[in-house]
Amino acid sequence: MKVSDYFNIRYSDGFFEFINQTKLPFEEKITKTDDYEVIAQAIERLEIRGAPAIGIAAAFGLLLSQKKSISESAFLLAYDRLKNTRPTAVNLFIGLEYMKEYFLSLLSSIKEKPLKNFNHSLYISLELKALEFMQNDILSCKRIAENGIDIFAKKSNVLTHCNTGKLATGGDGTAFAVIKLAHEKNLINHVYADETRPLLQGSRLTAYELNKAGIPFSIITDSTAGFLMQQGKIDLVITGADRIAANGDVANKIGTYSIAVLAHFHKIPFYIAAPQTTFDKNIISLHSIPIELRKPEEISAFGNIQVTDPGFNYYNPAFDTIPANLITKIITD
Amino acid sequence: MKVSDYFNIRYSDGFFEFINQTKLPFEEKITKTDDYEVIAQAIERLEIRGAPAIGIAAAFGLLLSQKKSISESAFLLAYDRLKNTRPTAVNLFIGLEYMKEYFLSLLSSIKEKPLKNFNHSLYISLELKALEFMQNDILSCKRIAENGIDIFAKKSNVLTHCNTGKLATGGDGTAFAVIKLAHEKNLINHVYADETRPLLQGSRLTAYELNKAGIPFSIITDSTAGFLMQQGKIDLVITGADRIAANGDVANKIGTYSIAVLAHFHKIPFYIAAPQTTFDKNIISLHSIPIELRKPEEISAFGNIQVTDPGFNYYNPAFDTIPANLITKIITD
Repeated sequence: MKVSDYFNIRYSDGFFEFINQTKLPFEEKITKTDDYEVIAQAIERLEIRGAPAIGIAAAFGLLLSQKKSISESAFLLAYDRLKNTRPTAVNLFIGLEYMKEYFLSLLSSIKEKPLKNFNHSLYISLELKALEFMQNDILSCKRIAENGIDIFAKKSNVLTHCNTGKLATGGDGTAFAVIKLAHEKNLINHVYADETRPLLQGSRLTAYELNKAGIPFSIITDSTAGFLMQQGKIDLVITGADRIAANGDVANKIGTYSIAVLAHFHKIPFYIAAPQTTFDKNIISLHSIPIELRKPEEISAFGNIQVTDPGFNYYNPAFDTIPANLITKIITD
Repeated sequence: MKVSDYFNIRYSDGFFEFINQTKLPFEEKITKTDDYEVIAQAIERLEIRGAPAIGIAAAFGLLLSQKKSISESAFLLAYDRLKNTRPTAVNLFIGLEYMKEYFLSLLSSIKEKPLKNFNHSLYISLELKALEFMQNDILSCKRIAENGIDIFAKKSNVLTHCNTGKLATGGDGTAFAVIKLAHEKNLINHVYADETRPLLQGSRLTAYELNKAGIPFSIITDSTAGFLMQQGKIDLVITGADRIAANGDVANKIGTYSIAVLAHFHKIPFYIAAPQTTFDKNIISLHSIPIELRKPEEISAFGNIQVTDPGFNYYNPAFDTIPANLITKIITD
């Protein structure tokens, strides 16, 4: 089966390209830019999203701030601009720090020499560093997929939640990469994708990626997962993770906890797939994971259509927490 | 606290009135009619919804077909028209049969006498019968509320799903009537209303009714219920039922099963409130309850806004099934 290619983010010949995720699945709008401000705005507008993808985009943003000429002040200006796009995104800082530390070490190695003599070689070095950062994520996705493949004892029906694919990372994704590799090995019968309210990452983005990969799937409302399990239609569950505590408790997209409990009740294995960078040793357990509360409009409206009264009260946490004892295994790189 | 009154359906002086539920919670659009075709179309367009409410509206539709003059053929024409508005709604047939049986018995009692001599008295009799049918439902709601009040051992946080209030019945509702009476007795701390995807009966209709009744509440996405239970924020769950099998298994709005499992896991009592008419002795258990599959567009669009590709595959059951062993108690009239 010929499957159309698609991509999330890419860099070549001094330009960064990204797909506008807010237009998916209807329109594959690609932006090509060498202006870090365009990248910063894309992160702010969720045109680029997914923790690892944001980190990579930010790294290339810093690189592009040095394209015309190497300048420490321009670098730090870009650093501050990019840092403030999604103030709570840990991976954003990882990408920015990765580049900043390297950039400052390069500068100190040539200190007191005229910068302009090194413009080209410094840019090349920085470019290699950003590409390395992206490559690390691609490899991380690949290793997660390889480490996860043995959860498939047979051709299986899989449930997943939110988006964990190429659109969220530099590579093939986390949980999605496992599903994709399993599909290539003929181990997938059907994937059920939760629509993932309120922002519909499942029905918009995961469905787009499943379709592109030629994997048979159905979109369901989040509250249909339990009924599928009752009917014996789910063999295993696999999702990503937003953060993993020292004791193995996990925070992930709201709704993941309910699925973990439902899987436990039905004796269905429940897997988490995430890179090592998701582990946060400073967090002891789920009780100390801070939960971001988001605005009511995500529930009371769809795009610019009001579905109910935004003046009512809402409780809209972005994440929930899954205790380690409900997780069959954490698959990592 | 002064609470605005609102209503769902009403009959007086030869006219039937109903609120257009598709406009709620934004607009309280009341239609007043003595044309059964208007009622038939309102049922088709879900302007009138909720099983008991549909049955009552249909009964009044039949009554109004006799307003100008008593005519068996006009009655049967109206009967057929109304019967085809929601072909799978059991309560619709109950309302229509209730009126038809009585109408035919009235006719047979005056057979071979000229109908026109009895126009007025026949209409009055039929009107009393329709009012009796509505009154039975109002009483049924009242009894459910009274029978349910002792599930509140203390001032409680309650989770509910879908809409079970005045907008679904002739009275104060089923599960909602229990919550409303508990609120009047100062036994409600907070109600969490699932938005109830895909049609949002929770965030649109239950929220409207909770707001009207002055009951403190928050709207949540369906997948947030488990996280609330994990945090100890839910004391009990109460929902309605679409159909109850002979062994006590229940069919209700999609998502109810997941909530029942989550409540079981967290040792939170899970109650169903429904009138006796919901019990179907012909159905042995949940395995023989037919589940209506609905169209993809309910998930892929909101109103006229596409949120994802309607060409993807969807699995969209209207109901799910809850085994009796997950139900703490069925509260009935």
